Amino acid sequence: MTTDQQPGVPGRIMAAEMAEQPAVLRRILDEGADRIRAVAGQVAARRPRFVLLTARGTSDNAALYAKYLIEVLLGKPAGLASMSTTTAYGARPDLTDVLVVTVSQSGGSPDLVASTRAAREAGAVTLAVTNNPGSPLAEVSEFHIDVLAGAERALPATKTYTAELLALYLFVQGLRGDGGVAAARELPALAEAVLARQGEVRALAERYRFAQRLVITSRGYGYPTAREAALKLMETTYIPATPFSGADLLHGPLAMVDNVSPVIAIVPDGKGGEALQPVLDRLRGRGADLMVVGQRDQVAAASAGFVLPPGVPEEVQPVLEILPLQQLAYEITIARGQDPDAPRALAKVTETH
Amino acid sequence: MTTDQQPGVPGRIMAAEMAEQPAVLRRILDEGADRIRAVAGQVAARRPRFVLLTARGTSDNAALYAKYLIEVLLGKPAGLASMSTTTAYGARPDLTDVLVVTVSQSGGSPDLVASTRAAREAGAVTLAVTNNPGSPLAEVSEFHIDVLAGAERALPATKTYTAELLALYLFVQGLRGDGGVAAARELPALAEAVLARQGEVRALAERYRFAQRLVITSRGYGYPTAREAALKLMETTYIPATPFSGADLLHGPLAMVDNVSPVIAIVPDGKGGEALQPVLDRLRGRGADLMVVGQRDQVAAASAGFVLPPGVPEEVQPVLEILPLQQLAYEITIARGQDPDAPRALAKVTETH
Repeated sequence: MTTDQQPGVPGRIMAAEMAEQPAVLRRILDEGADRIRAVAGQVAARRPRFVLLTARGTSDNAALYAKYLIEVLLGKPAGLASMSTTTAYGARPDLTDVLVVTVSQSGGSPDLVASTRAAREAGAVTLAVTNNPGSPLAEVSEFHIDVLAGAERALPATKTYTAELLALYLFVQGLRGDGGVAAARELPALAEAVLARQGEVRALAERYRFAQRLVITSRGYGYPTAREAALKLMETTYIPATPFSGADLLHGPLAMVDNVSPVIAIVPDGKGGEALQPVLDRLRGRGADLMVVGQRDQVAAASAGFVLPPGVPEEVQPVLEILPLQQLAYEITIARGQDPDAPRALAKVTETH
Repeated sequence: MTTDQQPGVPGRIMAAEMAEQPAVLRRILDEGADRIRAVAGQVAARRPRFVLLTARGTSDNAALYAKYLIEVLLGKPAGLASMSTTTAYGARPDLTDVLVVTVSQSGGSPDLVASTRAAREAGAVTLAVTNNPGSPLAEVSEFHIDVLAGAERALPATKTYTAELLALYLFVQGLRGDGGVAAARELPALAEAVLARQGEVRALAERYRFAQRLVITSRGYGYPTAREAALKLMETTYIPATPFSGADLLHGPLAMVDNVSPVIAIVPDGKGGEALQPVLDRLRGRGADLMVVGQRDQVAAASAGFVLPPGVPEEVQPVLEILPLQQLAYEITIARGQDPDAPRALAKVTETH
């Protein structure tokens, strides 16, 4: 038993759930993949032309990842839904030929249930991706995928995020008629190896213990990671952490970045990372304190960083990228004498209407 | 001649362009509305089923406003495009029946031009909304709307934002077969009255002169305003200003909000404002320092605020809401001894690829 698992130790619940992630990923591949492929086959038979993704918080970042997969791998236009148009303004768009994917850990938020019900009535094919097959959301959706993460007790979501990513990846591959398991097969072992390097992250956390702000950037498949890392840091450490796509950062907020405003860049190994290079050059040119999560050469060209394993297909790298950043949020919170398990205002099922 | 217009005075270019906004709005209504309605008629005849919006920076916030209009007023599903899927990953989704609207002040950013060209080749109906009818973006798009704001010289965009909002409103109303001019007719005079109250904003700016961070929130039609206000504040003051939809704020980052983390809420007069009430209650319950931009009763229930004129239809309120927030960014920057006309890193045409 490590100290992280002892009762009463700050952050022990979050630590335990972060550590479960390799087992959850393995469970999805071993026990969930066939079912996900079957659901994907049924959805594909309905020939959706457009995909709308609906989610909030951490699950919204998983939905953004799915949007990239759908556009790049499937060649279908996709958008993130603005839920209030349905729930507050009563919009009832014609959703014939539209697949509406609602992603939610609990499956219990009333606005997600209401907007999914409205989408189904408006002609959409509805799919719920949740960690709770008995939830109201799973109930109102025509199709359901269980992300098999087991009960999540920590308020900052960790294992359900990576579970949602993998489940959505397998689903999109399934829509293409591909099981997708091959590219993902190594993820559980690689996740285990990454998580075992928590000592490296603890050393990085020292850099940010007194930070007043953080800017987090990436492009392409890494951008959902930037957003989720920012959310995790804000939920636990309360440091304002602002995520920008690299291109948007150049369009204005770069003025915020200087040697007192550290930057964390997630550099995908692939086209997203290539597209990010001009942004990294500008940041280095401004003397920004730059921490990189990415390949060894990218980390070597930065002020600090965390080296990710090489050879992983770009579209599944987000499952690994977020792990050291979850740990970073955890370690900074501990270093600041706060408890990652007891953020000041979080409720596990947020009832937004 | 006010001090704001004297050469050499910090912020004089931004101040002059903010002050031009009533005249720009009037020009759009008087000289642009017929042309916008004609373009809308031609686009409507093509019967698009989905709308994708493409933009960056300030224009991306105008595009988000258009997304709400399209979903609520037109009942068509709409999404914001992730440009890197096209420009970095080479995605070529089938865009038959899709209207792609690209919004850009300069019309010159290479990635916007490339993604619009790719969309047109993929079968989309393409519309450029720009401040430059001779721009490459206007050139590659099948349709073009000129927002008639006149040359914008300040690096922080102000008059082109409100011009884009009004042009997009008239366009969406045109798609419905409605001129839309009636609801917008009073906007130039109301904008003039709001801008004349800069002294009130200057007093509010004192509150934030030493702020280390800001949280900005709204829901529905006010949410694009929250994002644009955050961007404007970050570009000019360098204070990290994080925008959240009210619902997303409850899903996590509320932990960041306390009496040292001031909150600015834009409270629409209508359904968006109603949906925001539980969030405002939670913020007040936490003792948050809350500044409200909205109606008199909402401002009275907050720590401070700016009262907007009553009786304006909710869907055009964003044109007015942003005005005191542009001025707030300007006034805080001046109070901090910085120059709003010379942000540390902005270039007027940002070349992202």
